Amino acid sequence: MAQEIKKIALLTGGGDCPGLNAVIRAVTKAAILNYGMEVIGYKFGYRGLYKNDFVPLTLDSVSGILNRGGTILYSSNKDNLFDYQVEEDGVIVKKDVSDVAVENLKKEGVDVLIVIGGDGTLTSARDFSRKGIKVIGVPKTIDNDLASTDVTFGFNTAIDVVTEALDRLHTTAESHHRIMLCEVMGRNAGWIALEAGIAGSADVILIPEIPYDINKIAEKVREREAEGKNFTIVVVAEGAKPKNGEVVVSKIVKDSPDPIRLGGIGNKLAEDLERLIVDHEVRCTVLGHIQRGGNTSTYDRILSTRYGVAAVELIREGKFGHMVCLKGDTISSDTLENVIGQQTKLVNPEGELVQIAKKIGTTFAE
Amino acid sequence: MAQEIKKIALLTGGGDCPGLNAVIRAVTKAAILNYGMEVIGYKFGYRGLYKNDFVPLTLDSVSGILNRGGTILYSSNKDNLFDYQVEEDGVIVKKDVSDVAVENLKKEGVDVLIVIGGDGTLTSARDFSRKGIKVIGVPKTIDNDLASTDVTFGFNTAIDVVTEALDRLHTTAESHHRIMLCEVMGRNAGWIALEAGIAGSADVILIPEIPYDINKIAEKVREREAEGKNFTIVVVAEGAKPKNGEVVVSKIVKDSPDPIRLGGIGNKLAEDLERLIVDHEVRCTVLGHIQRGGNTSTYDRILSTRYGVAAVELIREGKFGHMVCLKGDTISSDTLENVIGQQTKLVNPEGELVQIAKKIGTTFAE
Amino acid sequence: MAQEIKKIALLTGGGDCPGLNAVIRAVTKAAILNYGMEVIGYKFGYRGLYKNDFVPLTLDSVSGILNRGGTILYSSNKDNLFDYQVEEDGVIVKKDVSDVAVENLKKEGVDVLIVIGGDGTLTSARDFSRKGIKVIGVPKTIDNDLASTDVTFGFNTAIDVVTEALDRLHTTAESHHRIMLCEVMGRNAGWIALEAGIAGSADVILIPEIPYDINKIAEKVREREAEGKNFTIVVVAEGAKPKNGEVVVSKIVKDSPDPIRLGGIGNKLAEDLERLIVDHEVRCTVLGHIQRGGNTSTYDRILSTRYGVAAVELIREGKFGHMVCLKGDTISSDTLENVIGQQTKLVNPEGELVQIAKKIGTTFAE
Amino acid sequence: MAQEIKKIALLTGGGDCPGLNAVIRAVTKAAILNYGMEVIGYKFGYRGLYKNDFVPLTLDSVSGILNRGGTILYSSNKDNLFDYQVEEDGVIVKKDVSDVAVENLKKEGVDVLIVIGGDGTLTSARDFSRKGIKVIGVPKTIDNDLASTDVTFGFNTAIDVVTEALDRLHTTAESHHRIMLCEVMGRNAGWIALEAGIAGSADVILIPEIPYDINKIAEKVREREAEGKNFTIVVVAEGAKPKNGEVVVSKIVKDSPDPIRLGGIGNKLAEDLERLIVDHEVRCTVLGHIQRGGNTSTYDRILSTRYGVAAVELIREGKFGHMVCLKGDTISSDTLENVIGQQTKLVNPEGELVQIAKKIGTTFAE
Repeated sequence: MAQEIKKIALLTGGGDCPGLNAVIRAVTKAAILNYGMEVIGYKFGYRGLYKNDFVPLTLDSVSGILNRGGTILYSSNKDNLFDYQVEEDGVIVKKDVSDVAVENLKKEGVDVLIVIGGDGTLTSARDFSRKGIKVIGVPKTIDNDLASTDVTFGFNTAIDVVTEALDRLHTTAESHHRIMLCEVMGRNAGWIALEAGIAGSADVILIPEIPYDINKIAEKVREREAEGKNFTIVVVAEGAKPKNGEVVVSKIVKDSPDPIRLGGIGNKLAEDLERLIVDHEVRCTVLGHIQRGGNTSTYDRILSTRYGVAAVELIREGKFGHMVCLKGDTISSDTLENVIGQQTKLVNPEGELVQIAKKIGTTFAE
Repeated sequence: MAQEIKKIALLTGGGDCPGLNAVIRAVTKAAILNYGMEVIGYKFGYRGLYKNDFVPLTLDSVSGILNRGGTILYSSNKDNLFDYQVEEDGVIVKKDVSDVAVENLKKEGVDVLIVIGGDGTLTSARDFSRKGIKVIGVPKTIDNDLASTDVTFGFNTAIDVVTEALDRLHTTAESHHRIMLCEVMGRNAGWIALEAGIAGSADVILIPEIPYDINKIAEKVREREAEGKNFTIVVVAEGAKPKNGEVVVSKIVKDSPDPIRLGGIGNKLAEDLERLIVDHEVRCTVLGHIQRGGNTSTYDRILSTRYGVAAVELIREGKFGHMVCLKGDTISSDTLENVIGQQTKLVNPEGELVQIAKKIGTTFAE
Repeated sequence: MAQEIKKIALLTGGGDCPGLNAVIRAVTKAAILNYGMEVIGYKFGYRGLYKNDFVPLTLDSVSGILNRGGTILYSSNKDNLFDYQVEEDGVIVKKDVSDVAVENLKKEGVDVLIVIGGDGTLTSARDFSRKGIKVIGVPKTIDNDLASTDVTFGFNTAIDVVTEALDRLHTTAESHHRIMLCEVMGRNAGWIALEAGIAGSADVILIPEIPYDINKIAEKVREREAEGKNFTIVVVAEGAKPKNGEVVVSKIVKDSPDPIRLGGIGNKLAEDLERLIVDHEVRCTVLGHIQRGGNTSTYDRILSTRYGVAAVELIREGKFGHMVCLKGDTISSDTLENVIGQQTKLVNPEGELVQIAKKIGTTFAE
Repeated sequence: MAQEIKKIALLTGGGDCPGLNAVIRAVTKAAILNYGMEVIGYKFGYRGLYKNDFVPLTLDSVSGILNRGGTILYSSNKDNLFDYQVEEDGVIVKKDVSDVAVENLKKEGVDVLIVIGGDGTLTSARDFSRKGIKVIGVPKTIDNDLASTDVTFGFNTAIDVVTEALDRLHTTAESHHRIMLCEVMGRNAGWIALEAGIAGSADVILIPEIPYDINKIAEKVREREAEGKNFTIVVVAEGAKPKNGEVVVSKIVKDSPDPIRLGGIGNKLAEDLERLIVDHEVRCTVLGHIQRGGNTSTYDRILSTRYGVAAVELIREGKFGHMVCLKGDTISSDTLENVIGQQTKLVNPEGELVQIAKKIGTTFAE
């Protein structure tokens, strides 16, 4: 049956993430070298599918991209073709334009569509699958919070960047006896803060899953002073919440043009901590976009390559409507129907990693 | 004459800077190994001198610190012993306590004081010299803006960090067709923005020395689009100023607890640019403290080592009241009397580096 | 029962490996902070145990070592106390001195011995367990070839170093149209060559598990030329073997003082390839010791910390004679009796990773 | 006059070096953006000029190459068109084919030839200048040993790589109480060994300019032991020579296919040292090609960009037959006639850097 698959198309949706290009390269090489398929890539995610804007993907065009962050196919954040913003008679309306996409796939003779993206992008993939399109999904989230797969690419690169930043902040904190806050990605799940916090020797880790009490941070600072350590490193996930449940957004965050950079709690917390602990300076660094970009780590290059080749193998096996995933150390797959709508994989406050961090003296300021 | 120098003391003042530890190590090793001197280090800059709070510096205690950022002697930002804040009868007053410092030096038998610091710290060094203390200065400024020396340590490490960040931002900017701003250190002088901007392939560089016109940034964005490049990288020194002279501080910056992180123009500019260029997202990353810390670069390790050894040699030559400096490729020295009060070394808008940047297509948005 | 454990000792045996210090730190912090245990470390592995040469391990002494390669307890490669080389009456003899070690443990009041090491070191650990000593094992092998655990620390750092080297060699290979060989660690198992080869975009990967045919390498070179790619990157595990089974050691390797650096097939292969492919220069780089040292990667810092804390938890659970291990994403343990003598975990030529590499065009020159 | 320059050509000769691509990019951008020139690049150095094998260089083709090592124009090591190896009537003969090159330049309408290369490549450039070709030179040597310029690009990247390797070797040396040798580039001049040795905290530095006495290395090892430091780091330039003047090449080096990797003294020295110092293991790592490739450092990106723009400015000023150079911190130029044949810039044993190294306790084993 698989013999009939002659042409496949790829698209990348949502925020960029190290490893996207490695997946694109692996899909393209595996499809061409092993099965003689033709490969094209739609530009800017579903928008390109709607506008029939694509490029051919060849051995040449994917050469040299293995370690480059970003995506050579570009991406857009919000294009849902099932509820798409179009102009009609001078008025902006939302409508389902998915049939245009289906038509474009037919016109180009695309047999299978491989969709690399996060929850939103994959939900559309499932919906195209329901419309009869042969779809394969590849999961992407830099936050590592998908329940359907143990690890997603990009996460290892992100914690590398954060850990290196924490290493740098340590020397300044120590030299000036400061409290240094480092705000990192993680709206709903605290994986980046947790793992980079362990690797970067943070004294306090604040994550959305464990609401914090600011007084416990002050306690930790005092406790460290008593041990002769006059500085404290705090990693804060952007979605961290104070214990009383009230998410007080800082004055300096309001009306911010850049929710990724300023949307979190870091600056507010720095203000409050400096009032609470008057004999120490408190500084906050918001890592923002440098967590997403640049050179892809060794680990992510390998994982992305595995995902990309596995996606092509799913085609060969006729497993349409499936998404590749990693379980333990093994690549497998699950149906998009099962995967979509699953809960976000949150940090378990009773789980091993949190317990590990506590055992070596890190506090979550509960 | 130099035979009489038996004991020297070191202190580090002002903001931390990669290379401080390398200077401390070089001074200690050179003084002990070659001249059998005793070396001590005052903690927290002049505050330690005032409180007579010091540690012995030995071959052992400086082992392994060559490449570590920060300062093992700690530092403080604002302690001027000639105008020092003390409590008297329950009231905070400012007074000249420099005699206490002189007394402490005598009590400990310190023959020479080596002071590593920026303009403020070195001004006090000169004042102690005027009081008859044998002083040697070592210049420190991460901004590279001292007129008396061609290069200061820490600067190369800082532009390494910024350049790596720009490399990372490129892939995200390209993938999402965004305008990415990166705010870097540089209140008065734009050296970091200028050199990292050239090394990191910035399209627009905004520095205090060349007031910018926001419309020229928009023009550059349009021009790049016309060439098929749908993203733009802007490096902004925190002290960059709009051309009309009015420094409009962003709403999100007011009342900030952290002038280093938010004191600049980056976020305001991002807001304004997004209003001006509606069809592109604009994002700003403020690098902040990660520019100061962490591993010291190869270049800075060598330069700091040269400075440290040269400081000890100045002692041997009896050149008290001098500061080491680098002229071209040669280590030399100048008197603190000459050095203090010199103008900050600003970027020359007509100088070679600005012209180089322009010739390869970078704009300063004049 | 665990209440009676008051004092534990640690030792590290075998070749050094990034992550050893992270384990030492995690064990020490977890034991002191949670259970108030006293911790000491024997120096140079079993030799220190024999000579009763140890240091106390405190929160202070393990501060700042999380990311440092090597081991603060030092290590030695060949000291087996059950067959130990001693001088008796001027003659060197081998004898079982394990009772001396047992005596030393008693004398110091050590309740549990934690042994971090590879196969040889852990075999002795089992033997001490058989003698009634309470022992906990922590597996260490940079080659990742232990059957009893899915991943060992140090491996991720090693492939990071190799991958960066391959990135560097690419630009030179391409500029000069060369064939570049890179010899990496792996006497028996080819994991480093395989994973770094995938991450570093190697065209040819040679591992002990898949004997190679030199003519197939030449074929690959010709095939790439036909595609317009005039350079080829070959990763060679030091234990790679030619297909005919005859391990021809290079003239330049014989009598080498440094088996790690020159013991492999890389240089011989370069000689032979240059004779076979006369129109290309062939160069070989032997990475050697830089694969083992330096900064520990983010991944390995986390894994080592998990291992260290888990070792202390095994003590609390009374699971003496056990070794910590990682299965899938979960920390668990197994008895040393089961673990010792297991086959080395070799690369499966039919396994997923080899197949992945082949699907994207890498050859194993079978 | 400069108005008549409409088309320029570039070529790169000799071994590859980080920064070549940055020069190519800067020349191309400056020539096109400022003066509307047309730019082409000959492939494989002079060979491409002889075979008229070239590519157009455009803003597009130089995009994204600023930080990439190697040369997009390729290079070859030995092609001297004034004494070129050609086949005539089935016999290989050497003859002057420079007229063919001149003819090709005329045929393509090339007004100026920019030659980027080392001594050999620039000698040919001078010879073409003598033949009436308008030539501009850009100096290239990773060894930093050209007398006519203070710094050459590539050198800073090379010492970065070596310094990082030394950092890595330290942890292994310390853990195993070993003597670790690191052989680095430098046939005639020891700059890389000297500067990286200072930055990487080497205990012994061996360079061609200061013949060494092996017994002095052993002395240093003993001296360090007496201070409680049981490991020693030795950096050896490949051209280092023993004091007696006899360059004993190791058995393992003879017949080596790879002079860069094995041509030096490192392995021989390791053999000899292990015999001399029986109670320490001695290991040698030969860094080889990883010193030349990969990502270009911040410093080198800036320097190369300055050189490239300056080369175009020389054209504008009509300074043909000149080579760009750096004097102190200023870009200037000199005539190829002056530059060619100058002595190699050797390390001065009485110079500042050697003295600095000695003052902090490093020995040159004289």
